[in-house]
Amino acid sequence: MSKRIGIGLLGTGTVGNGVIELLRANCATIAARSGYEFYLAAACSRNTERAQQRVGQDVQVVSDWRAVIEHPNCDIVVELIGGTDTAHEIATATLQAGKQLVTANKALLATHGVELFETARKYESNILFEAAVAGCIPAIRVLRHSLAADQINSVCGIINGTCNYILTRMRDTGMDFATALAEASELGYAEADPTLDIDGWDAAHKATIMAWLAFGTPLTLEQIPVSGVRHASVTDENYAKLFGYTLKLIALAQAHPSGVEAWVNLALVADDSKLARIDHNLNAVLIDTQACGELLLVGAGAGAAPTAAAVLSDVIEAASGLASLPPLSNGTKLLGPATTARESYLRLRVIDSKGVVAKISAQLADAGISIEAMHQGESRDGEETDIALLLHKANWQQVCAVTESLAATDDVKSQPVLLPIAISRTPLTT
Amino acid sequence: MSKRIGIGLLGTGTVGNGVIELLRANCATIAARSGYEFYLAAACSRNTERAQQRVGQDVQVVSDWRAVIEHPNCDIVVELIGGTDTAHEIATATLQAGKQLVTANKALLATHGVELFETARKYESNILFEAAVAGCIPAIRVLRHSLAADQINSVCGIINGTCNYILTRMRDTGMDFATALAEASELGYAEADPTLDIDGWDAAHKATIMAWLAFGTPLTLEQIPVSGVRHASVTDENYAKLFGYTLKLIALAQAHPSGVEAWVNLALVADDSKLARIDHNLNAVLIDTQACGELLLVGAGAGAAPTAAAVLSDVIEAASGLASLPPLSNGTKLLGPATTARESYLRLRVIDSKGVVAKISAQLADAGISIEAMHQGESRDGEETDIALLLHKANWQQVCAVTESLAATDDVKSQPVLLPIAISRTPLTT
Repeated sequence: MSKRIGIGLLGTGTVGNGVIELLRANCATIAARSGYEFYLAAACSRNTERAQQRVGQDVQVVSDWRAVIEHPNCDIVVELIGGTDTAHEIATATLQAGKQLVTANKALLATHGVELFETARKYESNILFEAAVAGCIPAIRVLRHSLAADQINSVCGIINGTCNYILTRMRDTGMDFATALAEASELGYAEADPTLDIDGWDAAHKATIMAWLAFGTPLTLEQIPVSGVRHASVTDENYAKLFGYTLKLIALAQAHPSGVEAWVNLALVADDSKLARIDHNLNAVLIDTQACGELLLVGAGAGAAPTAAAVLSDVIEAASGLASLPPLSNGTKLLGPATTARESYLRLRVIDSKGVVAKISAQLADAGISIEAMHQGESRDGEETDIALLLHKANWQQVCAVTESLAATDDVKSQPVLLPIAISRTPLTT
Repeated sequence: MSKRIGIGLLGTGTVGNGVIELLRANCATIAARSGYEFYLAAACSRNTERAQQRVGQDVQVVSDWRAVIEHPNCDIVVELIGGTDTAHEIATATLQAGKQLVTANKALLATHGVELFETARKYESNILFEAAVAGCIPAIRVLRHSLAADQINSVCGIINGTCNYILTRMRDTGMDFATALAEASELGYAEADPTLDIDGWDAAHKATIMAWLAFGTPLTLEQIPVSGVRHASVTDENYAKLFGYTLKLIALAQAHPSGVEAWVNLALVADDSKLARIDHNLNAVLIDTQACGELLLVGAGAGAAPTAAAVLSDVIEAASGLASLPPLSNGTKLLGPATTARESYLRLRVIDSKGVVAKISAQLADAGISIEAMHQGESRDGEETDIALLLHKANWQQVCAVTESLAATDDVKSQPVLLPIAISRTPLTT
């Protein structure tokens, strides 16, 4: 006879309904695999009528989340309401009650993670959050468990499906950003308000959580440079292609001897790299480690069913009693642009005239930055054209500074586009 | 203060030495992450002198494995000696002593897994075996934990690095099998005796373990069709390329309403599929599930350090106390070729003469098998040439039968090549 474990479900929206349906469909399989029979003990929703329909008549539905946490049959609390205010109260109350918390809330973890893990330790409870990063891709389980004996060099992710869909469609069809966003919305790949996605904040939440797990550096959103895909252009997609690259919204966290580099930015990845063909709304996390080399995880990063599968895998793990210790907080320093170096892509809109390339080259050379490759758009003398450059690895602050001083010259006609190269081309062996 | 956990290490060869070195290098990180301080309590090796050098002077080295299991400081036994006889005795004795077993031994699990899990349950112990399948790729942890709430449709793997290296080199350079094998040996990608790898047995061991976890079907090697890459030819690589496919050694386990299909075979995967670019000695596991869709895991499938990282991740998990229940054994039936259907690739060596294609087509049509695409090698009338065909999905037993009857005709000059298509091309949307 399996032991019965009651779930308190907070939030019965899209993901919550996914959890309800997946648990209903696979209850017997889960019991056979885990030895536990899971059931909904109580649910909380602002829309109690809809929630009652979703959970069925035999499950108590309340509008006060405290009643769920305090419910005598609630062993594990699943928080799916999102946000950082009420969710923070819920998380704290759950842990203080000595109950285990399963959450898909990346903003909560990114904002209050360190404090919540302290609370969990104090009350001998547990927080599981596989669903908070990249849906069903097991990024959290791999970082926390599979690589627990390894040293991680970098975590590089395509972890926002909306942005990835938009960029893929722009590259493949030549459509502009607004058209691609509209298409994404129509297909349900973008929210009604897509700001959090397209401006990079969703990816940044996930990146801070992964950086914390990988390097013991608890970061806040304010600390890391975050940019999105709003200014992505087909022009840059095309030049990137000429150089053998493709544009992706990349979340990167990389260890250096002196600290950790972390950012979210539109960036170039080499066409021969593992991330170049992660297209449409797919997500991927590429982890480079000392012992394992490159480990790539690819799958559905969002959606009700994949996220629900991740939530329930945590519920099962919570019941099975794996001790889930706080991630390291070892004081590893976050590095700013003054102390990191990257290859980069720079596009300048100039008036085509004799000597313009020479002047730009000289200015870059003066700053100690050398050019790896260059393409110039077709144009006639006196017309505007593009000069696209791949720049060798250089101090990022200096690259930004020289870009600004180029922008201030008469030759350059609009704001330059400067993008980091996240994954370089494999050097040709000679 | 961390709790100290003693490891009893059985086997100090390549992987054993990897475990010793990784533990030494990352002991402090592991303690910070897990809360446990792991140390070698005792080690067993046939070569005690070399073992003593590897583990250091402060660790007891014995030649009798029983002394390790019985050692009072040995909390977790790590079995890395391989084989199925002594390893079976070791595993049984470990579990009967109530100690947890971590093993990288795929043959042991594939041969005695069901019985060992019964022993583990009886003695309230535990078996962990992430390192037994595909090195550092977290196939086991994903199948057992991440997808515990999901229904798995299929598991399709490139899980032998030796074979994958050989096939990649044949395709990319046109070299023949023997030359590619020699190159793999020289680079350390093939064992001194490569039989287990190139004849598919290594992949088959791993496939039976994954099928068991995914579908609750404990399989033995004798039950499933296993074939390797010994007869791979550049001719077939080239025809596959013309059809938009590439050749891979594929281990497949797929659920059907009436049971599970499982085999290891040289097979075609579409060039636009996720497995087509898993090249050289990389491994990949592609899991298709009802809730998550396709989940792809790619990484180093072998090597001392990646395997050691997987072994130690299990050691940490064993210490952390996650209950590891036996995989399901739900009686799901293994399906034979009479009850499965596949698309396929067929190459026939024929004398080029008028009507030969018509005769072959007619024979296939009579068997109810239709042709999707065809290529014929260049030749003059009366000369030998190849006819390569892609065949639509058909009952596999019938495809085999018609291939045999074609082979028996005067037109066909040598043994036909018949290969299943593991992953079809994405249909063009109209």
